Amino acid sequence: MLDIKDRVAIIGMGCTKFGENWDKSVDDMIVEAAYEAFEDAGIEPGDIQAAWAGTTGSGSAGGSLARPLKLQHVPVTRVENGCATGSEAFRNAAFAVAAGIYDIVLAIGFEKMKDSGLSGLPEVSGHPVFDQGMTTPGMFGLVANRYFHRYGIDPVEGKRTLAKISVKNHHNGTLNPKAHFQREVTMEQVMNAPIIASPLGLYDCCAVSDGAAAAIITRSELARNFRDDPVYVKELEVSSAPGESHLLAGYEFGSFSENTVTVKRVYQGAGITDPLKQIDLAIVHDCFSINELITYEDLGFCPRGKGKEYVDAGVFSLEGELPVNTDGGLKCFGHPIGATGLRMIYEVYKQLQGKAGPRQLKKAELGLTHNLGGTLIGSWTCFIGLFSR
Amino acid sequence: MLDIKDRVAIIGMGCTKFGENWDKSVDDMIVEAAYEAFEDAGIEPGDIQAAWAGTTGSGSAGGSLARPLKLQHVPVTRVENGCATGSEAFRNAAFAVAAGIYDIVLAIGFEKMKDSGLSGLPEVSGHPVFDQGMTTPGMFGLVANRYFHRYGIDPVEGKRTLAKISVKNHHNGTLNPKAHFQREVTMEQVMNAPIIASPLGLYDCCAVSDGAAAAIITRSELARNFRDDPVYVKELEVSSAPGESHLLAGYEFGSFSENTVTVKRVYQGAGITDPLKQIDLAIVHDCFSINELITYEDLGFCPRGKGKEYVDAGVFSLEGELPVNTDGGLKCFGHPIGATGLRMIYEVYKQLQGKAGPRQLKKAELGLTHNLGGTLIGSWTCFIGLFSR
Repeated sequence: MLDIKDRVAIIGMGCTKFGENWDKSVDDMIVEAAYEAFEDAGIEPGDIQAAWAGTTGSGSAGGSLARPLKLQHVPVTRVENGCATGSEAFRNAAFAVAAGIYDIVLAIGFEKMKDSGLSGLPEVSGHPVFDQGMTTPGMFGLVANRYFHRYGIDPVEGKRTLAKISVKNHHNGTLNPKAHFQREVTMEQVMNAPIIASPLGLYDCCAVSDGAAAAIITRSELARNFRDDPVYVKELEVSSAPGESHLLAGYEFGSFSENTVTVKRVYQGAGITDPLKQIDLAIVHDCFSINELITYEDLGFCPRGKGKEYVDAGVFSLEGELPVNTDGGLKCFGHPIGATGLRMIYEVYKQLQGKAGPRQLKKAELGLTHNLGGTLIGSWTCFIGLFSR
Repeated sequence: MLDIKDRVAIIGMGCTKFGENWDKSVDDMIVEAAYEAFEDAGIEPGDIQAAWAGTTGSGSAGGSLARPLKLQHVPVTRVENGCATGSEAFRNAAFAVAAGIYDIVLAIGFEKMKDSGLSGLPEVSGHPVFDQGMTTPGMFGLVANRYFHRYGIDPVEGKRTLAKISVKNHHNGTLNPKAHFQREVTMEQVMNAPIIASPLGLYDCCAVSDGAAAAIITRSELARNFRDDPVYVKELEVSSAPGESHLLAGYEFGSFSENTVTVKRVYQGAGITDPLKQIDLAIVHDCFSINELITYEDLGFCPRGKGKEYVDAGVFSLEGELPVNTDGGLKCFGHPIGATGLRMIYEVYKQLQGKAGPRQLKKAELGLTHNLGGTLIGSWTCFIGLFSR
């Protein structure tokens, strides 16, 4: 088997403003994200040889992408993988480029959540027996309570740690004109917000937003024909698991094996032994604040049970050793499901190019995206991508 | 760019009995098709390194495949492209293998139509303005009437030609234990059947059926480690178009540009100048009898407007020069959307291996599958695959 390493590069990206885009159709958002990417890459829409569209519920056949972009007789494929759908559009497009089948392709993810009634995965996603009756906040509320119990953390102290993550992400969002939410929140606001699923309050939960993001991908040896600062794909790994283990009595509820298996493959492939030192930024799946905390540990950013100490020390803030969710994360972008994975890559791409504006990191040479989807007692899918200058 | 030619091979396939599978869940059909494929390839489920699942409405996140097959920490991606969904699962899996990312992968397509209420594409597939109010039989009824008008064919004579196609496919279905329908129909039955959308009657329309089909794919240089008679992928082409042209006054309604563009790429890639002589069998998208007729012409199996003469001469029957839909086609298998593309490849695979039982062709060295999806005034996607011994 061959690694994807250094065989594929990103030469252009685009991202809409995320938010309650009542005045934009799905087609409008597709056009906005794709044309920013075309312009960024210095190509015309007609240069696209194939496209992959990621959406869970805002479009069906691949042909639905052909229409807004007027892609005449170009192959368009829709991919879907729950909350990791946008990352999968990128991954499948990258594989086709790595195979040499196409030279220039488009990966795009989009979702219209607000006026579609979508508030998560479509009904069909769950198992008819195992997955019924559990909301997503409810699942992650269980995870948080179990995490606190496991490490003997006082629930109020635990909630305070989660709140610090939300405050950090909201701060990052103020520096990002594409974020849905661009205002600070205080510890007091987060701690006193209405409870959604205990211990998670309103500010522990990501919003329901509309958005789209797009990438133009080519083979690495062609990338510098398009621009001086392409971003290279180092690793793209996905793992899914059937989830029966989550029903067993000993299941931990405070770690996802899909995370740990996937990240091990990524780190082995890229020679990463000390992620905190070697990785410059990580955009992770903070659908709920507890998931960002658990992800720190699952991805080896800090030891098990030590998330609180690292959060208190500001390790993951913009000025910290490993800034996480520099763009504001799902907390400030919401989670238009098909768009999220590509929105994450968009931030890494801009940071690696030194074009992230007021939130630009001093050192940004290696960036990671982490996109998790699934249901607690169903099955999970974890995508992790690693990108370099 | 590199061609897919001879870089990817099929080493195992499986296919459920298609039909009204009330007693089988989606998971049951996935297990049945996949395990036939595993056994055929002589591999264990644990040998699968990645999987692609094709379904339009019978499962969502890729993880839904992980559960029935117990694929522990294997990447599972769902792909969808309307009626060409099953072919897309195969194509994306083949690209990942061609890229060298994985050595052994599973492509599977499945759909539960009967008890899901699915009778075609989900509501979201269509354009909110252009695609409303037109049923699929209605679309193809228009195509048939326009075709008759264009070539000055008497409507009753035209309907007789279509009926001969249905009679042929029903005959082929009698030789196939996996078909939904396994009985002959007479010209009289077809001609006198209730009208669905004039001129198309009941026997001009494919059924609503449940089913699943699967393929195990590897790199060509590894294929003979698994079996002596692998089937090689020569071409995999897809094109989608935005469909606005279908709204123009001059649009022909008797040919799909997606067909003609795609087949041109396939024939150029494979050096095919006389398909009737060079191709040994074709499994094409006969969702309605008129679509098989038009496909003969779009794919160059006969000159424009000459379909009737070729049908009368039996060119496309089992004993003809280019047998089409040797397995009974959508006519006898119905169209469980995600499964159809892989069901087509299953027939080519078995024919090329000489294992098609009573319907086995004398010469079967090069086979084609053609899978069309879309809406008449929306957009179409055409997939064409070419496979050799």
